[in-house]
Parts: sequence; C-alpha cells; structure tokens
Amino acid sequence: MQVFEDIAALRGYLAQMRAQGKRVGFVPTMGFLHQGHVALMKAAKADPAVDLLVVSIFVNPLQFGPREDYREYPRDLERDKELCRAAGTDALFVPAVAAMYPEGFATTVEVGGGVTDVLCGRSRPGHFRGVATVVAKLFNIVQPDVAYFGMKDAQQVVVIRRMVEDLNFPVQVKAHPTVREDDGLAVSSRNTYLSPEERRAAPVLYRSLKLAERAILAGERDAAKLKELLVREIGSEPLAQLDYAEVVSWPGLKPVTKIEAGAVLIAVAARFGRARLIDNVLVEVK
Amino acid sequence: MQVFEDIAALRGYLAQMRAQGKRVGFVPTMGFLHQGHVALMKAAKADPAVDLLVVSIFVNPLQFGPREDYREYPRDLERDKELCRAAGTDALFVPAVAAMYPEGFATTVEVGGGVTDVLCGRSRPGHFRGVATVVAKLFNIVQPDVAYFGMKDAQQVVVIRRMVEDLNFPVQVKAHPTVREDDGLAVSSRNTYLSPEERRAAPVLYRSLKLAERAILAGERDAAKLKELLVREIGSEPLAQLDYAEVVSWPGLKPVTKIEAGAVLIAVAARFGRARLIDNVLVEVK
Repeated sequence: MQVFEDIAALRGYLAQMRAQGKRVGFVPTMGFLHQGHVALMKAAKADPAVDLLVVSIFVNPLQFGPREDYREYPRDLERDKELCRAAGTDALFVPAVAAMYPEGFATTVEVGGGVTDVLCGRSRPGHFRGVATVVAKLFNIVQPDVAYFGMKDAQQVVVIRRMVEDLNFPVQVKAHPTVREDDGLAVSSRNTYLSPEERRAAPVLYRSLKLAERAILAGERDAAKLKELLVREIGSEPLAQLDYAEVVSWPGLKPVTKIEAGAVLIAVAARFGRARLIDNVLVEVK
Repeated sequence: MQVFEDIAALRGYLAQMRAQGKRVGFVPTMGFLHQGHVALMKAAKADPAVDLLVVSIFVNPLQFGPREDYREYPRDLERDKELCRAAGTDALFVPAVAAMYPEGFATTVEVGGGVTDVLCGRSRPGHFRGVATVVAKLFNIVQPDVAYFGMKDAQQVVVIRRMVEDLNFPVQVKAHPTVREDDGLAVSSRNTYLSPEERRAAPVLYRSLKLAERAILAGERDAAKLKELLVREIGSEPLAQLDYAEVVSWPGLKPVTKIEAGAVLIAVAARFGRARLIDNVLVEVK
C-alpha cells in the first residue's frame, strides 16, 4: 500500500495506473475506521468493475458547524493504515487541511432541490455544502470509476448522487448497507464518544426504526403514527435526546403523510451525551 | 468533424480517443461564433499539449438574468458548424437544454472570494454561478486536458481558474488575448445587436481603455483619476450608457486606489441600445 499526502504525487501514481488500464474504486472517509468502512473497502475489492482501491482519510473542516466536534473528532492514523492495508487498499490518500483548503480557497458546491434542508441538513446548516464540496474535490483528484458510500449516511448518498448526476461527474456511486454491532447499533466513529451507559442506551435508535418498519409491514400507512412510535420509543430511553424522527420519500427525501407504494426512508437522530448519532432504515412498500 | 447532441455518445467517442492516447483541448462557447472563438480553436490546434479539439455550443440559461437576453441571444448553428469545421474541430458538442438541465437538476457551483461580486458580477447577480456551474458540467463531460477562454471575459477567466484550483479539476486553463475589429471594438456575439450608429459609437470602450493605459504608462497612479478619464471618455459618446468603469488588481479583482507594481485590470461595461458590451485591458506596472 502506498500512502500519499501530496495531491500531485497521488495524481502521478493514478495516471500511471490508469495508463495500465486499471479502473479505480474509491472509498472516501474521515478516518478512525470501523467495520462500516472495511465493508466498503471489501465491496470495492470484490467489485468486478474495479482493479485498484484508493481510500482517503480527511477530517473535512468544511462539513462541521462552528459548535460541532471537528477538533475532537477521533483520529488514529496508524490504526487506520493497518485496517486499510489489511483490506487490500492500494493507495491511501491523507491530505493536510492546508493542501485541500489553501489560502484563497473560495468555491463551494451547493446541492438544492430539497435534499439538503431536511433531516441532518436542517440540524446541521452548511453540512452538506461541506460534504458536496469535499467530495467534488476528491472526485477530481482521484477520478474514480466507482465510489462507495455507506447507507448509515443515507442522506449523504442522496446528496452525492444528485451532485454526480447534476454536474456530470463520470463516477458511479454505489451505496452499501449499514454495518451494525450485535445489538443493532450502527457502527460509527462517533460511537467512541459514548460512555458505557450511553453505549447501552444507544441501540434504542435501531429498535425504534425496526418498530416503525414492522408497523409499516403490518399495514400502518399513517406517517404521523409512525413518528409517534419513533418518538415514544426513543423517549423511553432517558439518556437519548431526540433530534429528529422522520418518514420521507426515497430518494427524494420529501415529507410523507400517507405511505404509498414505493420506498420510504425512516430516519432518526439523537444525542447521547456528547455523541450525536444517526440511523435509518429503507422500507420497500408494495 | 463529428457532431454530438448526446452526452453519452460524446463520452463514448472521447473514451475511445483517450484510449488512443489523445489529449483533449476544449473550447466552450455559446455559439454564434466569431473570430475570437476561431482564435481559441486555432490556439488549441497549434498547442503541442493537445491532440484533439472539442468545441461546445450551448447557450446556457443559468448564466442569464431574468431580464437579460437569453431568448434573443443570436444563434446560427449551420454557420457555426462551418466555422468549427474550417478551424479543424474534431468533435462539436451541441447539447439541448433538457440534456444539460433535466428535471430535478439542483446543484450549483459558487465561486466566492470577492471575484464574483464585482464588475459584471455586481451588474449581473447569479451570472458567474451559472458560468461556474455549466463549466463544471462541461469539464466533467469532456474531461479536457486544456481549456481555452478569451480575455474579453477577463473576470470569467479569473472565476474559472479559481474554480479549477479550488475543486481540483485536472484541467489547464489557458487565456487568449481579445480579438478586435480594425477600429478596436472587441469582437462579440452581442455586437450583432448594434444598429449602424451604435456600431460606430461602440469603439469608445476600447479608446477609453487605451487612454487609461497610456495614463498609467505615463506615470498616473491614482485610480480615481483613471476612472474619471474612463467615465469622461465614455460619457462623451451619447449612445453609450455606462454600466461600470473600474481599475482592479489582477487576478484578485480587488479595488485599487493607488496603483503599485504588478498587474491591474482596467474594465468597462456599457449599453449601446439593447447591447451590453464589455471590454478590458490588462496593464503590467513596473
């Protein structure tokens, strides 16, 4: 595995690889890697459309709000390198903030159309502008054929796909199912913030989602009733402080009042101490 | 010369060309081609860094304001094709508006840093957002090695270079000097709007710029005095309605009060009847 901090050096390596006909798979991450990231890397390695795996680790300041956890976001590059190597990563890109956002940087990518001002976009203004901007940069640097994202960040998948389609990035975006702990908690770098008590409380998110999913599969079609179910279940956990519980269309992320045939996303966010955790399930309704 | 309306067909052709090792030069235009565009095509054909010339013709609705001349912007595709063919264009891309902005389109590229809210950006709010967005799309579709822009639109050159650097587009942006008629008028598709009287009046723009340039070279360092000179000269022409006359730093486009060593851009815009014309000169100060 080659490690690059320098954009030009990575570009040089990738130009060589492409000249040999290698097709590039790309997993962009913020590091502090977990089994969710490893699953994306394994998906890339197993993908017949890809010959070479590039992983990036960059804690992107642009996607954090002023009162969010940019400074304390967990970092452990040595451990990350081991995980990348073990998963078969060919090139690891770890740029410095000054390389990604040099003095004078002034360009942003804004995805509208109602997919960035709901759910996490409402709780975290500017977050998806930061995500779209850094992913546009990373796509232009790596020029991947395929990029892999995890479905825990379902809204991010929608935003990136919208951007890719709208700006004609020659990249295929593949989404991978959320990886969970045995008790259902979605794996996340931010789980490291949880105290033992909070960690025991956190699976309430997935439990609430499964309750709502079962209600839909049993015939419930009233989104307000489903939200009540989510709010009540999460509210039953004293350590959970609800941010949102929503039922929206997929992939439009439009509010749903009556569930009809098609796919709906049930999405929740809550704080447990200083950790803000999110989770979702996608339900196909016939 | 091959002509493509379809994005996927153009991509297929370009993938074949790139597989043969061909490096792509790109001239994006809004059509109604003139000698300025032809000069860009010739520059691309003569460029040792380029093997293949792609020209696009697309009147981009996103860069026109609601009261601007999108509908009446001149179009003549058959004549344009002849000019492209004669200049040695290999592929001409003429997408429909519905192909570039299909239903649901919702992503924009915004260049800040003070280069889009001055000069034409102040007179035409949203114009450079439209320019940056369509150029980002075209760069992702064509994936050129080198792209060529005319210096008549000097602010556009600055905005595109800022975007390319900030979003890491793997494209080299080359600027080509403004092409002028014998009497100094910068060639422009919008010159076609001019009545014979307005056409005779329009060279006042370049005359005013050359006056200011000569004043600088003779030692004038006070930007206010230079602006006075520009305003007085353009004001002496009854058919000219001044939009702006500015002296700004290059390439930062910051307001200048006292001219110091370096480059300054002297830029003017004025209406002649329904034509809004712009022009500029770049002056190196020692």
